Amino acid sequence: MRHSEAMPADDVITSTANPKVRHLVELRKRRVRDAEGVTLVEGHAELVLALDAGVRVRTLYCCVDLVTDPDRLALAENLAARAVPVVRLGRAAFAKASYRESPDGWLAVVPNPERALSALTLRDHPLVLVAESVEKPGNLGAMLRTAEAAGVDAVVAASPMTDWGNPNVVRASKGTVFAVPVASAPTAEVVDWLRAAGVTIVVAAPGADRILTDVDLTGGVAVVVGAEHDGVSDEWLEVADAPTRIPMAGRVNSLNVAASAAVVLFEAVRQRGLP
Amino acid sequence: MRHSEAMPADDVITSTANPKVRHLVELRKRRVRDAEGVTLVEGHAELVLALDAGVRVRTLYCCVDLVTDPDRLALAENLAARAVPVVRLGRAAFAKASYRESPDGWLAVVPNPERALSALTLRDHPLVLVAESVEKPGNLGAMLRTAEAAGVDAVVAASPMTDWGNPNVVRASKGTVFAVPVASAPTAEVVDWLRAAGVTIVVAAPGADRILTDVDLTGGVAVVVGAEHDGVSDEWLEVADAPTRIPMAGRVNSLNVAASAAVVLFEAVRQRGLP
Repeated sequence: MRHSEAMPADDVITSTANPKVRHLVELRKRRVRDAEGVTLVEGHAELVLALDAGVRVRTLYCCVDLVTDPDRLALAENLAARAVPVVRLGRAAFAKASYRESPDGWLAVVPNPERALSALTLRDHPLVLVAESVEKPGNLGAMLRTAEAAGVDAVVAASPMTDWGNPNVVRASKGTVFAVPVASAPTAEVVDWLRAAGVTIVVAAPGADRILTDVDLTGGVAVVVGAEHDGVSDEWLEVADAPTRIPMAGRVNSLNVAASAAVVLFEAVRQRGLP
Repeated sequence: MRHSEAMPADDVITSTANPKVRHLVELRKRRVRDAEGVTLVEGHAELVLALDAGVRVRTLYCCVDLVTDPDRLALAENLAARAVPVVRLGRAAFAKASYRESPDGWLAVVPNPERALSALTLRDHPLVLVAESVEKPGNLGAMLRTAEAAGVDAVVAASPMTDWGNPNVVRASKGTVFAVPVASAPTAEVVDWLRAAGVTIVVAAPGADRILTDVDLTGGVAVVVGAEHDGVSDEWLEVADAPTRIPMAGRVNSLNVAASAAVVLFEAVRQRGLP
């Protein structure tokens, strides 16, 4: 492998000032990612998850010196065989391009998963998750994994604080950000889009009168959950067709937003008899 | 307040080498926390959550210079009025004692929430959450919040990777680690304890035949979830009365452990008709 056509040893980028390396560093900025419509996936395990989820790699950057398990180099062969450009980086150049503390020699530029609301397609009786102003990549990633497992049609960030192409969201999602259609837009636009799609807007809020299991989730439904600290905004509560609360037995009353999304989405799965 | 009896201005610890300050630093080590049966709660908001959850502060350390909102000093007054020792630290001494990047002037020594399995008391038909070898404080914290909201009797760490008194678990739990009885023990001991308590052991595993909603969760139940990477061990699968899987519609099949716990616990809540 080390001398294969996929990664010729005489064509290694060693300079940390190389334009390709500098460009990889630039892609840590949301503005640059958005302008180019791409994002980054770093790490062998993460890349395998993204590929399993259907991602198409634009360019693979690999540092053979950092790859401790030679079997992993098959990944570069496989991508090269699918006409993916494979660029070899030296240790210093890779360390410069990497956004991890302990780089393992794998970094890929892939299409940014985020699409326009208008580019989302919904089945009959769709199930949509709307996350309003959720900020932490770990929460967004956990919600994507849950949404994928629950078979949602799309996950929409309303008035987003963090973009779907954020490398930390990509990482926390374990590849699912490439398997579930994702979009983001200001809340007003999301509401218009949901209305046009004819789905029932179910808003999770601790103060709601109806408990979750009393709400019919079998039709077209958008489940709306709110930000970490403040929950859903009044804007969503005003347009909610069905404000609902998760029954709470405790006295602290503070489900994490990703846990709330999991409980509501799997209640929908239960009611729908899926899969 | 600044000149109140609760925090006399002439009695401020300014040296970073003061034994009390060094002791606070030592308490970041699990060994020291376990030996003394205490842990740390840092930050005004976090301390308020812990107090709401019923924690009894052993000693409050406060740096008045770091407190930007003078209204918050009422907390020190209130604790002093309840005979809690209040120790003033100067800026440098507090910075040394603090385990946060941006300390806000509040740090408390509190009883370690962890107790022995034998010290847990269960109601009739109890609901118990068992987390096997879960490692990330964020996941343990989210699970505690979920468990508290679902009204569980206890949360037990089996073959634990991280202790309940870990300050990052305390923080992620939003105080709920002080509201829900928590214990930890090797898996074999936890199994014996559950058997003696006569509860049904329900193990969440993706490969199980029965889906969650087909399992009766209305009696005494222990819900067992596994570690981030590997799920539950064979040890648990062998003793499971009811292995169960969460129905998955997606193709990636990778619910986060805290999301899994939320889905199973709130299915139990639904079946039990609580609250």
